[in-house]
Order: sequence, then C-alpha cells, then structure tokens
Amino acid sequence: MLEARLQNAVVLKRVFEAMTCLVSEVNLDCDESGLKLQAMDQSHVALVSLKLEDVGFLHYRCDRPRSLGLNMASVVKVFKLCSSQDTVSVQNEDEGDMITFVFENNAEEKTSTFSLRLMGIEQESLGVPDEEEGDVEITFSAKEFASIVNTLKEFSDSVRIDVDKNGVKFITNGDIGGGEVVLKPREGNSDDDLDVGVDIKVNHPVSQTYAVKYLVFFSKAASLSNCCKLSLTAHRPIAVKFDILDPIQGESRSAAPKLGHFKFYLAPKMDEDEVEQNAAEDMQTEGPKPEGHIKPEEDADN
Amino acid sequence: MLEARLQNAVVLKRVFEAMTCLVSEVNLDCDESGLKLQAMDQSHVALVSLKLEDVGFLHYRCDRPRSLGLNMASVVKVFKLCSSQDTVSVQNEDEGDMITFVFENNAEEKTSTFSLRLMGIEQESLGVPDEEEGDVEITFSAKEFASIVNTLKEFSDSVRIDVDKNGVKFITNGDIGGGEVVLKPREGNSDDDLDVGVDIKVNHPVSQTYAVKYLVFFSKAASLSNCCKLSLTAHRPIAVKFDILDPIQGESRSAAPKLGHFKFYLAPKMDEDEVEQNAAEDMQTEGPKPEGHIKPEEDADN
Amino acid sequence: MLEARLQNAVVLKRVFEAMTCLVSEVNLDCDESGLKLQAMDQSHVALVSLKLEDVGFLHYRCDRPRSLGLNMASVVKVFKLCSSQDTVSVQNEDEGDMITFVFENNAEEKTSTFSLRLMGIEQESLGVPDEEEGDVEITFSAKEFASIVNTLKEFSDSVRIDVDKNGVKFITNGDIGGGEVVLKPREGNSDDDLDVGVDIKVNHPVSQTYAVKYLVFFSKAASLSNCCKLSLTAHRPIAVKFDILDPIQGESRSAAPKLGHFKFYLAPKMDEDEVEQNAAEDMQTEGPKPEGHIKPEEDADN
Repeated sequence: MLEARLQNAVVLKRVFEAMTCLVSEVNLDCDESGLKLQAMDQSHVALVSLKLEDVGFLHYRCDRPRSLGLNMASVVKVFKLCSSQDTVSVQNEDEGDMITFVFENNAEEKTSTFSLRLMGIEQESLGVPDEEEGDVEITFSAKEFASIVNTLKEFSDSVRIDVDKNGVKFITNGDIGGGEVVLKPREGNSDDDLDVGVDIKVNHPVSQTYAVKYLVFFSKAASLSNCCKLSLTAHRPIAVKFDILDPIQGESRSAAPKLGHFKFYLAPKMDEDEVEQNAAEDMQTEGPKPEGHIKPEEDADN
Repeated sequence: MLEARLQNAVVLKRVFEAMTCLVSEVNLDCDESGLKLQAMDQSHVALVSLKLEDVGFLHYRCDRPRSLGLNMASVVKVFKLCSSQDTVSVQNEDEGDMITFVFENNAEEKTSTFSLRLMGIEQESLGVPDEEEGDVEITFSAKEFASIVNTLKEFSDSVRIDVDKNGVKFITNGDIGGGEVVLKPREGNSDDDLDVGVDIKVNHPVSQTYAVKYLVFFSKAASLSNCCKLSLTAHRPIAVKFDILDPIQGESRSAAPKLGHFKFYLAPKMDEDEVEQNAAEDMQTEGPKPEGHIKPEEDADN
Repeated sequence: MLEARLQNAVVLKRVFEAMTCLVSEVNLDCDESGLKLQAMDQSHVALVSLKLEDVGFLHYRCDRPRSLGLNMASVVKVFKLCSSQDTVSVQNEDEGDMITFVFENNAEEKTSTFSLRLMGIEQESLGVPDEEEGDVEITFSAKEFASIVNTLKEFSDSVRIDVDKNGVKFITNGDIGGGEVVLKPREGNSDDDLDVGVDIKVNHPVSQTYAVKYLVFFSKAASLSNCCKLSLTAHRPIAVKFDILDPIQGESRSAAPKLGHFKFYLAPKMDEDEVEQNAAEDMQTEGPKPEGHIKPEEDADN
C-alpha cells in the first residue's frame, strides 16, 4: 500500500501543472523515502527531476517500492477537483492498476475521490548530472526569474546568460534589436519574505546561451517557491532549482517546512565558432566532450 | 403599458445571461402578477422556468397581459450598457412592437435607453412538472453546485447522482478513470451568509444519471443566489431551483428580499438495461411512461 | 544626444499601447521642447497627435532636433520589460541608428536595456486642425467615455453625438433596435479625484455622426487621465483630448504634474442627404469644403 497525505492539495496541484509543458507521460517512483520523478522532454534537450520527501507529508506510508505511470493531462484534470482548503491523499494498492487521489475538506464535510488507470511507460535511465557546485550560482526571486524569461522570449529564441562578480546579465538579440536585463548582487529584506535579494557566487565567470523556451517551461514552477537557484558551468547544462514549500503549514519563511524540490536541467546552445573551438580543445586535451544534448544512458526508443 | 422598475439592474442582467446557453429566443409573459418565462432548449431535453414577482420591483404596472418575444443575444448586448449602480426599467407600450430598457444612475445623472424590436415566437405549451416534493431534496451552496458540475464535465458526458440519508454523491466514469464527489449533511453557519450548509431530505433513496452539460448550463444562475435546491424523483426530471435575491436592497440574509426564482428541469438519462426494465414495468403496471424527454404538450414544429 | 528620463515607465508604456490600434509606424519628433508625434491611421480617417513636454521629465536633453522612426509593435514589446516601480530613459546618439530604452529599478538594483533599430518612415505633413474652440466642448470622465463607446460599438458601426445645453446624447441605431446614452451637466466631487463631473459648454448645438470604431481606438488612452475633453464643430472633425498625468509624482489632482497630452481627431460621417445639402451650401457660399477625410497636405504615397 502507498498512502501519502498532504496538508495542502494545491501544492501538489501546482507541482503537476508545472510539468505539463515539458512532459506528457511520466513514472512517479515511490519508496519509503518519498515520491520521486525524473523525465526528459520529447526533444531530449531538457530534464526535470522532482523529489517530495516523506517527512513533508502529514502521513506517509510505502510498503514496497513502485513506479506509477501517469498521464500528466489526466492528473491535472483530477486536480481541478481540489479547492484551496483541501488536503489530498495519494493512494495505490500493492499490485493495483489504479492511482487514487482523495481530496478532503473537513470544514465542509466534502470528499472528492478520483482514480486513474496507471500506464505502462518504458523507464528511461537518465543521466541526471551529479549534484556539484557550478562555476557560478545565483539565488534570487523565483518570480523575477519567471518575469525575465517570459519577457525575453518575445525578442528571440535564445538568451545568453553572462555572470561575473558584478552581476548577472540576461542578453537577447533578435530581429528588431537587442537588449539585456542586469541584476546586481544585493541583500534581501529580512522583514519581507518575498524580497529574497540576489546572491551571486562566482568560481569562474560564465557566458552561455540557452533556448529560452525551456527556461519559460521551468518558470512554471515559480509559484511553488520564493526563490530559485541557477547553477551554471561552462559547456555543461544549466540547473534551475526551486525548493517546494508547503505554504499552509508554515507561517514565516524560517518556519515554512520544505516538502521537496524541483530541479530542471537544460543543455546549452553552441554557436558554430564555439563548436569548432571546443572540438579543437577536445583533440588537444582529450577531455570530456561538451554536450549539446542531455543524453539518456539508454535510449528508450531503441 | 408595461413598466417594471428594478433597484438593481445587474440582477436582471445576470438573469438573462444565465439563460443564453440554453435558449436563443423566448417569450417573456407579463401580467399583473409579474414577469414569467418558460422555454425548452433546442434538443428538448431541458426546460427553464423563470418567475419575477411584481412585489420584488420598485414599481410594477402591467395594464393587460402580453407576451414579448425576445432574442436573448440582443437582450444580453443591451444589458452591457448597465453598470453596477444602475436601476433598470423595462417598458412596453400596449400594442407596441418594441421593448425598452432604461438604465438610470441618479448619482451620475446618466440615463441609457435601448429599444429592441419584438419578435413573433410561436408559443410552445410546455409540460412543466407540477410543484411536488421529490423522492429526495438537497439544499446547498449554489457556488458548490456550479463548482462540482463544472469539474465533472471534464471527465465524462454524464454524471450519476446517488442520494441517501448519509449524503449525496456525484459520480463520474470516463475514459481516464472514475471518481465521485461526496457531500454529507451538515448545518450551515448562521454567522456567514455564504455558508448555507447541506440539507438532505430523503423520502426514497435515488440514483439517477444526467447529461452533465445541461447541469453546467443551469449553474450559470448560481451567481443570483446563495443556495440551490435539487429535487430528484426516480425516472422523473431533476429540478434545480435558484431563488433570485436582490442583493442591493437587502443587507442580511434574513432581510434580503426575494425577487423570484429560476427553475431548471432535465430529463434523466437511461441506460439500455433500465430502458428495457422500465418498458417491462410499464407493460405490467400500465403506469405512466418514464420520459426520456420533457415533451411540450403541443410541439411548435408541427 | 537625446536623453529623456521619466519617473514612471508605465506612463510611457500606456502612451505607446494606446496608439498601436491606430498606427503601426510613426516618427517620434524630438527637439528641446520635448517629444512630439503626429500620425494618421491607414484609412486616413483619424489622426493622433501626442506631445510630451520636456518639463514633465526628470531629466530632458535634446542637443539637436531629430525624427525617430518607430515600429509600434516593437516598442510595445520592449515596454513589456518594464515593471510598475521602474523609471525609463529614452536615448538616441546623434546620428545614431538605434533608440534605446533603459528601465531602472533602484530598489531592486535591476536594469533592463533594449535598443531598437530606427526605421526610415516617409514623413507626412499633416493638416492637424488648429487649436480653436469648438461649437461644443464636453469635459467628463475618461473612463465613462471609454465605457460608452465600447458598449455602443456592439450595436452599430456609427454613433451620433447630439449636444445642447441640456446634455450630451450618444445615439446608436442598429439592426436589433436603437438606443442612446444621455449625460447631463453636473458638478464633480471635489473630494473624489475620479468624479470629475460633466461640464458642457455650448456655443452652437451640434449633431454629428462618427465611425464608432475609431472612438474605441481613442479610448485606449483613457487609462492615462481622469478626464477627457470632446470638442465638436459642425462638419469638422471631432477632437478627443486626454491630458497625460504622471500618477507616481503627484499625490492629489491639483498637485499631479501634467506630462503632456494626447489629441485624437476623427472626420464626421455624412449621410447622403447631408452630402447633397453641403454641396449645395458650398456652391452658394463658396466656404470651405466639409471634409469627409482628414487630408495630409502632401500625400506620402505620391
């Protein structure tokens, strides 16, 4: 039996909604430590990794590990049943072929239950990058990240991110002209949970270009957290991390319990010059090949 | 002369807007007791009945009975002229071929007047079910009703409603899975006008299936009232009733004057087993035939 | 060098947004007195004239006059970069082929910069009507003007405006019926900045018909000002004027600094009777020909 009960159903609603742009079908991996999910987008350029810790739930029980194949569109439909006061319980019988979501509103003595048929989804073994410190790490408002990438997508398909100790620049160049958004490092306001400041840690300055469309997809998770952390390393995928807070349980930022996190990865774009230069460097140094794609270790299509 | 002046034009605006999904042309029947309207949807499955009492108006005068043929889309356009502070006066000269709506805002010394040409609409004599107590009667939040049917329409064309003394279940079964919303009987909160509780009166338990699309249409009237009343009887149309309150005049629930009511009726869906069983019962008992359609006594198309 | 810095970027955002329905490409004329713009819509029926005074800016410098060719859609995209707390600086190097917009948010130490390539747009020399008192002048709420023309556009392509000392009538006649909105003269409420009253000055009563579509376009500027002024003269274009206020700087209506103004002109529609009658009058009096179009002095298409 799997049974995971969460105080605030809306949090799980937003978690699933944040993924629907990227992936249509996923395996939700469940074991005694919590719920976990990793998936690539169809073009194999971006990767999403979700972890919801057992301790973040009101009640969590998972008798044996299991992998539940979900259609994202169906799950999002089910979560339309939930309202802002509801708790949610996620249930799966051992060997059962259904996943059941139970929304309860104790004040209104209302219960909504919905069971979805599970899907058999071929499990990709994904090359999720190891957790290691990037050349630069930027921690700032999740809402600001969403606002910047959503605006810049209007001008060009690509965004270049330049980071040094003076600040971070989001740079766009399109048909109608060019521009940039510059954030300088600054302290947050300890009296205002929403003002988290801009923290920039620089090991080596970085300048790298990404397909802005995917950063827009990642930014759907911004409503789950006050801040996000970008981690960039030369020729390696960018990591965009959002902690998932449970806003009902916690009343101040320090007390807000952390339910888990979202991590998104996106391979950088390389222009032709860079590709040639990197190839030359590779031949000289025989170092690791810069990746234009995040590659699954085994490709499910074979 | 017909002249009916209402304190709060927005109430009449919502009344007309609530009907546009169901009917495109209707006769508004006026006599000394008030305004009345009955119409079927085009597929002859659902029926709407509206009554606005003379006493609910600031001023009401109707020298002789008349039937005014209205195009709903035109009326809704006219009501876009009104703002939240306006009174409205509905006028029709005896033998006149126009209906006139006058919106007045005394504070702003603004008057908006619009006259629509009346239409000749063949009057259907409708078999509106008699007012009688159903097998079960459920009184609960109109907003809750709207929320439930609007969510369940995502899963399936049909919704089954099961009622016994333990509660009411709205049950759906679709391609992606199945689910239910359960409401248990409970007291309302007398300090909170919006919390009307859930009252369930059961003479005989009922289980019946309806086309959810029409319940969604009915729920457009939910903004006119705090609560709605469902009345279900085996093999008979469901009745969904909304009292129409005038929110400007009244300040608390007990004092809020009732302007009239909306009643919607919808014939149940029957699956093949039921149809056969009912046919068998009919032959044995020669009782009244269960209706798959609400039938006008005379069909206007003939 | 041109450099014009404005306290409140959102004001300039709304100024450009208000014009996009009317014109797609314009020359922004800059000299030491401020920024100026005049343009006709493509059908040569309406004309927009904008003036932003140098004194309304935090900082204004224009070393030599210049005319900057802008694509409205691109400018509006750029202004999506700005948020409600931003200042904006408009910059152009002498002989430079770019216009640069710099949005700064000092509290957040965030700077967004975008440069657009300038366009070569053939300058039309426009016959902007002289500033003279009309037969009638009506000053009232800009929001009310927007509300009226946006509602009346639902009924007919045309609106007739009748003004005498008793009030102003906006009259529509369409396929489904006819109607009118009447405003009577009244004092504003000095305690409420938004209640500007209705002031009607009548030299000669006027009755004239306009294409409502253009009045709707003009009303996009309503968010920039509390009130608007309509100026009507028989057989001459209507002028609709909005003062542009800088809402951040000023705290009460009397103190709110005026940044500049929008003026829109629209030639009246004439029905066939009127056309003939006017032609007859012209032959007799040899007075100025009533204009069905606002004509540029030189047509750029030649």
